[in-house]
Amino acid sequence: MAKDVVNFNAGPAGLPRKALERARDEMMDFEGTGLSVMEHSHRGKHYEKVHREAIALTKSLLAVPDTHDILFVQGGASQLFATVPMNFLQKDGSADYVITGTWSKKAIAEAKLFGKTKVAGKGGEGDTFTRIPRQDELTLDPAANYLHITSNNTIAGTQYQTFPSSGSVPLVADMSSDIMWKPIDVSKFALIYAGAQKNIGPSGVVLVIIEKSFMAKGRTDIPTIFKFSTHAENESLYNTPPTFGIYMMRNVLAVLAEEGGLAGIETKNRKKSALLYGAIDNSGGYYRSPVEKESRSHMNIVFRLPSEDLENKFVKEAEAADMTGLKGHRSVGGIRASTYNAVSVAGVEKLVGFMADFKKRNG
Amino acid sequence: MAKDVVNFNAGPAGLPRKALERARDEMMDFEGTGLSVMEHSHRGKHYEKVHREAIALTKSLLAVPDTHDILFVQGGASQLFATVPMNFLQKDGSADYVITGTWSKKAIAEAKLFGKTKVAGKGGEGDTFTRIPRQDELTLDPAANYLHITSNNTIAGTQYQTFPSSGSVPLVADMSSDIMWKPIDVSKFALIYAGAQKNIGPSGVVLVIIEKSFMAKGRTDIPTIFKFSTHAENESLYNTPPTFGIYMMRNVLAVLAEEGGLAGIETKNRKKSALLYGAIDNSGGYYRSPVEKESRSHMNIVFRLPSEDLENKFVKEAEAADMTGLKGHRSVGGIRASTYNAVSVAGVEKLVGFMADFKKRNG
Repeated sequence: MAKDVVNFNAGPAGLPRKALERARDEMMDFEGTGLSVMEHSHRGKHYEKVHREAIALTKSLLAVPDTHDILFVQGGASQLFATVPMNFLQKDGSADYVITGTWSKKAIAEAKLFGKTKVAGKGGEGDTFTRIPRQDELTLDPAANYLHITSNNTIAGTQYQTFPSSGSVPLVADMSSDIMWKPIDVSKFALIYAGAQKNIGPSGVVLVIIEKSFMAKGRTDIPTIFKFSTHAENESLYNTPPTFGIYMMRNVLAVLAEEGGLAGIETKNRKKSALLYGAIDNSGGYYRSPVEKESRSHMNIVFRLPSEDLENKFVKEAEAADMTGLKGHRSVGGIRASTYNAVSVAGVEKLVGFMADFKKRNG
Repeated sequence: MAKDVVNFNAGPAGLPRKALERARDEMMDFEGTGLSVMEHSHRGKHYEKVHREAIALTKSLLAVPDTHDILFVQGGASQLFATVPMNFLQKDGSADYVITGTWSKKAIAEAKLFGKTKVAGKGGEGDTFTRIPRQDELTLDPAANYLHITSNNTIAGTQYQTFPSSGSVPLVADMSSDIMWKPIDVSKFALIYAGAQKNIGPSGVVLVIIEKSFMAKGRTDIPTIFKFSTHAENESLYNTPPTFGIYMMRNVLAVLAEEGGLAGIETKNRKKSALLYGAIDNSGGYYRSPVEKESRSHMNIVFRLPSEDLENKFVKEAEAADMTGLKGHRSVGGIRASTYNAVSVAGVEKLVGFMADFKKRNG
């Protein structure tokens, strides 16, 4: 009997048991073919069905309009930090970036290699990111090629509660850490990209949702493999895709759909974050959130204890009680509970109970 | 009971049963952790062990010298077609390419976006590739930034039997379709890259072996994520790697090592190709190989039948007899039996028996 572990990893993160069991059960014989799904040709009918189902599930779960294409690419969000400006930052143009943490900073650094960038807003002072800037704090360039945001910040523990209005400027969002945590209006975005490994699958696949009219503006003097249009024209089969990764994403999305889709998962996710922030706010200051209330993430809940020693003890004892992945990011320290889609309410209740007990013993 | 299928797919291809069974058995509980390997953090000790083992197995199987680094990157060989010149084709430099088929053509096309290229040799007339050019047929630029070859050509069915001497020019090889089919002298290469999905794993991982002194010459004005040095400095953990893909590669390499390493697999692979080419050459012209004898691939054995109708019948009947993936590439037609590492001698014997029978019935 395997241990019953609550997985608070920041990514790669936990996946629904059902999605993994399906992979286990089909590993040696995919749909009666005698082969594993990863042994099938990406151009054969067996894999093709999986590929199309992953696209169809994405389209239906997020209500993606026909104006947008759904693509699967490789290289993680870090690669998209480079390929987004490579495609869409024009030679005489400029791109706006809102800087809300480590990932936005990496994104703008890659963009600078391709052209002019402007910081449209910042989510904190210096290198400390504790909030999401409000719309009235943004300085938007109406002529920008695009406005880039990071919808959720895994390290800082902040998240946009409402997305900025960018007027006629195409809105581009890195949603790696909160894609499909709730329903969103996809039509507001020119481009959404998300590494799968938090909410919707294993690492090695990036989900891209791109507006066709925006894609048409992409530069043509760049490598074939990096053009979004290449992948759109070939239905993400220009070259061999990460077939098993897309298969696992399909399995995860199928579970999401079965369990009530994104409205259902939003209810569950809000319940989890409410439990945790409640435990923090009602601890009489023993647990402290460094994040401004209006900007708190529902995916990565970061908090501090009275001392680093206590934080280390907290992580160690939680691990011993089968709650894993609670150590904060090495750049900021503290505690981080990542409560992505696959984390259960019961798992969070267990953590909240542990927090109360730990405080009692170490208060 | 699952069907016993011989998998002649050109890639993604068959994997050792043992490697897949290990993945199945550990799917829900990786080494007693209660989590799947793909649910572990890429910075945690459990995944880290797998990552290091995949590197160590590569180093030992291919006898990679300490002058070279072993990296895992994403995007398939098609992405390396772009990132190799992005890194190593200098602004005032030139790169030599030997063109032996579709993949070399794609590689040079991406290189042209970054600088000057020269065709150092060609493996056929027009768009028909039936041979590997001999050393004395190559026109090598002694000042080239590198010489690029495709060691095995999946569509044409050709393969270098000996690698070209490039003098002091760094030799770069796309070995996607024949990496680890036999021992090679890695020290002759400045850079080897190989999509895993033929001989050593699932799709979504590219193995890179790069000489450190060559890597040091890489351009610095390119995106961080595309610099080979970024991945070397971070032991392929700069960003989240495709953890499950690397885990599967580790499983496959462990089986290779157990079964006698690359000397053992070469014996097996040569036996398979000898069986198949024997069946072709001794068929009295019923089966014909379009490839020059000296250039024949040991990985992708292409052949024709007297008519396209017979070829279609052959593929259909073979499929019914549980031999899959024999249809030639859509661009050239005919039959292609891909006999990568995981294909057994018994599987090839079954095909050879079927070929004799088919000829008897349709001769």
